[in-house]
Amino acid sequence: MNIDLNADMGESFGNYILGQDGELLEYVSSANLACGFHAGDPVVMARTVKLAAAKGVSIGAHPSYPDLQGFGRRSMNMTPEEIEATILYQLGALDGFARVAGTRLNHVKAHGALYNDAVLDEKIAKAYVQAVARFNPSLWLVASASSPLVFDTARQAGLKVLREAFADRAYNADGTLVSRQIKGSMLAEPAQVAAQVVRMVKEHQVIALDGTPVALEADTICIHGDGPHALDFARAVRQALQAENINICAPSN
Amino acid sequence: MNIDLNADMGESFGNYILGQDGELLEYVSSANLACGFHAGDPVVMARTVKLAAAKGVSIGAHPSYPDLQGFGRRSMNMTPEEIEATILYQLGALDGFARVAGTRLNHVKAHGALYNDAVLDEKIAKAYVQAVARFNPSLWLVASASSPLVFDTARQAGLKVLREAFADRAYNADGTLVSRQIKGSMLAEPAQVAAQVVRMVKEHQVIALDGTPVALEADTICIHGDGPHALDFARAVRQALQAENINICAPSN
Amino acid sequence: MNIDLNADMGESFGNYILGQDGELLEYVSSANLACGFHAGDPVVMARTVKLAAAKGVSIGAHPSYPDLQGFGRRSMNMTPEEIEATILYQLGALDGFARVAGTRLNHVKAHGALYNDAVLDEKIAKAYVQAVARFNPSLWLVASASSPLVFDTARQAGLKVLREAFADRAYNADGTLVSRQIKGSMLAEPAQVAAQVVRMVKEHQVIALDGTPVALEADTICIHGDGPHALDFARAVRQALQAENINICAPSN
Amino acid sequence: MNIDLNADMGESFGNYILGQDGELLEYVSSANLACGFHAGDPVVMARTVKLAAAKGVSIGAHPSYPDLQGFGRRSMNMTPEEIEATILYQLGALDGFARVAGTRLNHVKAHGALYNDAVLDEKIAKAYVQAVARFNPSLWLVASASSPLVFDTARQAGLKVLREAFADRAYNADGTLVSRQIKGSMLAEPAQVAAQVVRMVKEHQVIALDGTPVALEADTICIHGDGPHALDFARAVRQALQAENINICAPSN
Repeated sequence: MNIDLNADMGESFGNYILGQDGELLEYVSSANLACGFHAGDPVVMARTVKLAAAKGVSIGAHPSYPDLQGFGRRSMNMTPEEIEATILYQLGALDGFARVAGTRLNHVKAHGALYNDAVLDEKIAKAYVQAVARFNPSLWLVASASSPLVFDTARQAGLKVLREAFADRAYNADGTLVSRQIKGSMLAEPAQVAAQVVRMVKEHQVIALDGTPVALEADTICIHGDGPHALDFARAVRQALQAENINICAPSN
Repeated sequence: MNIDLNADMGESFGNYILGQDGELLEYVSSANLACGFHAGDPVVMARTVKLAAAKGVSIGAHPSYPDLQGFGRRSMNMTPEEIEATILYQLGALDGFARVAGTRLNHVKAHGALYNDAVLDEKIAKAYVQAVARFNPSLWLVASASSPLVFDTARQAGLKVLREAFADRAYNADGTLVSRQIKGSMLAEPAQVAAQVVRMVKEHQVIALDGTPVALEADTICIHGDGPHALDFARAVRQALQAENINICAPSN
Repeated sequence: MNIDLNADMGESFGNYILGQDGELLEYVSSANLACGFHAGDPVVMARTVKLAAAKGVSIGAHPSYPDLQGFGRRSMNMTPEEIEATILYQLGALDGFARVAGTRLNHVKAHGALYNDAVLDEKIAKAYVQAVARFNPSLWLVASASSPLVFDTARQAGLKVLREAFADRAYNADGTLVSRQIKGSMLAEPAQVAAQVVRMVKEHQVIALDGTPVALEADTICIHGDGPHALDFARAVRQALQAENINICAPSN
Repeated sequence: MNIDLNADMGESFGNYILGQDGELLEYVSSANLACGFHAGDPVVMARTVKLAAAKGVSIGAHPSYPDLQGFGRRSMNMTPEEIEATILYQLGALDGFARVAGTRLNHVKAHGALYNDAVLDEKIAKAYVQAVARFNPSLWLVASASSPLVFDTARQAGLKVLREAFADRAYNADGTLVSRQIKGSMLAEPAQVAAQVVRMVKEHQVIALDGTPVALEADTICIHGDGPHALDFARAVRQALQAENINICAPSN
């Protein structure tokens, strides 16, 4: 049994250090690297690509709306042409660093507001998917397991899709994520997080916040890298998966 | 007999239109495309790459210091690591658009202050050349014919070099360019510009501002695209070269 | 009889020149100056403030979402705190240049998507109005004559409001602007534009695209500065108003 | 006996948190606030101004070259007009937040490369001083005690100057700072830092790295806020000064 563990990385910028990439790379199989539009700068990108490659972690692009100040978390009303070109620019930039480091991109996962908007807006989903398909149709596209729009759009464009679930987020009975505004939306204990991930992988199921078991097919599990207990969660998840003889690895391209 | 004619393009940004790329592409064989750091944005880059490809004009990257407000004309005190990563980022971004448009990069020419600083500062020349060589060692690097530093550094790194001369700039008797502060530094008449280019190509020579003939070996001639008479100059140069049966074409990669 | 004529200015940026500020200042009584977020940079702001002051034209701030690439024309999903602080930053920056030039701000007019969003979204209208009221409650706030939200919000906050109409835009029978997507939305002839403005001022009325006369109370008329015939329109409007003995002047503060 | 303690603050940006402003404000009398060009954004500025005002700490502007990615630490080759306008823009922006918060700017201290370049280059020193003098000639200008250029230029322009010394930096026998490349350039122990500050204030003297006593007249002492022991240093300095009955306060304007 295999599962991919992914985490966002390379989100430092200039003098600003964010995350604990070096440590987190010990636990995950795929790294989503910022491309300079919500975070990351050329030096950070060059270094993070090298670091991930040295640790044998698979690399993907984490493109965003052009909004460093808002960390890519604010929706922007862009045209499909703007969205496609903005994503292509970021894919190309990261791809250059990957090639120079002797590695290559394996997947793409939109960041923040772009990830969320693509789930809801067909025009955005299409522009996003088209950018990836035109850039390199053999890339995996990471899309939310509970939101079929990006998923279906990507498949229609001939892209392979990784359905994503979240290690430390609570789910609703309909398979969607519990809003962060609601109490209990974030799991707090490493053991709880690890148990949720094992259940997702072994039983294709998650227990919703109200106790309902919900079917959920996930190919990749997102580990957040920015909380205070991020490394504890990552370690617990990794150990629990290994104890179950589940292989942690990125899908091959 | 062959010569390459190059011009800077893709320097519009958002709502700001600069240059007359569509017309200029009728006259040149190589286009130096801005990569978003001194000019250009993802949409401009996507469109300009497609336009150049459609007109059969060879494409090169025109990377810059990160300074949109200064149009890349202000030196910035960056470390070699920063310079190399900054250039790699821009090469990768443009390369993505080129591949999506079914074409590829053929050359690199640094822009503005980066072009000038690389001529004078060995540390900068090395970082610049290293970025290009690591990205793709088969790219041509455009370097000033009268300034051996970049030229030699690039050759030592195994890069092929195009020696550049300027169609509308006056030269000193030592082969350097007359400073723009000095009267007569810019040629004003299309016929004068065309004659200078023909002499450069056929006789490997330029007549300096003081009348001295100066030996000059040029593989590519820069046509400025941003003056009020840019298209007149470009047309005159092209016609004069054709009248001499000189073939205008980019070097093959 | 008095009327204010306003135009957007100071929208150049670095190497990019936009508009014909010097000429336009001959025709208008109020200049809306970009503050560096959609256009303008510190040097452009310093120069434009001085120029307007020298020509006796009243100065106002033209704050925007932080989006140079989109020229402030793309909505961004910002919090009220972000919007208020973003506007305050721009007001302060421009106000510094005004004070150094021996003049002062007289009005504020939001730019582009921020202008439009404030008309539709009460949360945005309040954040915008609050920024202006806190910065300087004696500033005039320019708001669309046909959209009461900003208008009412500003009055409730104790701000004086200038109701704005557009010289070269066609109106619907309900007093709203005809969408730019619809044919005939932009008036094409200087005489037509001038006649519309005179009717607005003298008869408090505009003839809608379908021929219906519509009541409209305007305190300031916007002259666009960026079309190919901008100066022709401005000149025609000014001459027509003067022929009617209507005084063109900014409201005093 | 009085002394001013100053520290850089408001250097967070968007999602990036830097420094421990809330704690540091307990120890210093003056805060140098980033203005959005090397760090800080409108929300950070609004909040930091309010926080400093609430704690009774005097506020000053900390303007920089426009280089967020380089944190203002990279020299940029700007014209005097560009430097003056760039500084004016930042002073105005911060001043707006100060006025809205019911307080006012008391001093200006250039940041990073701009601080250092103004010490060495008369053209830059003049542009910097001119910006401050034109904006508000009653502001205090903070200049290095060991570098007379800014100092003299400011006095000639009629500005009041605060001579600055550094709590945790080692000095050379000629009164200049020991380069950060040299071992021992940074004091490591809170007690050592506190003793150096007390000696500066009481005896107008610093003991150089080689043991030589050096005369030094300081009106304000810089406490670094970004090292791992920043708060320990600040606390030790404050306690040592209070034990000597030295009053910690900003100069009045």
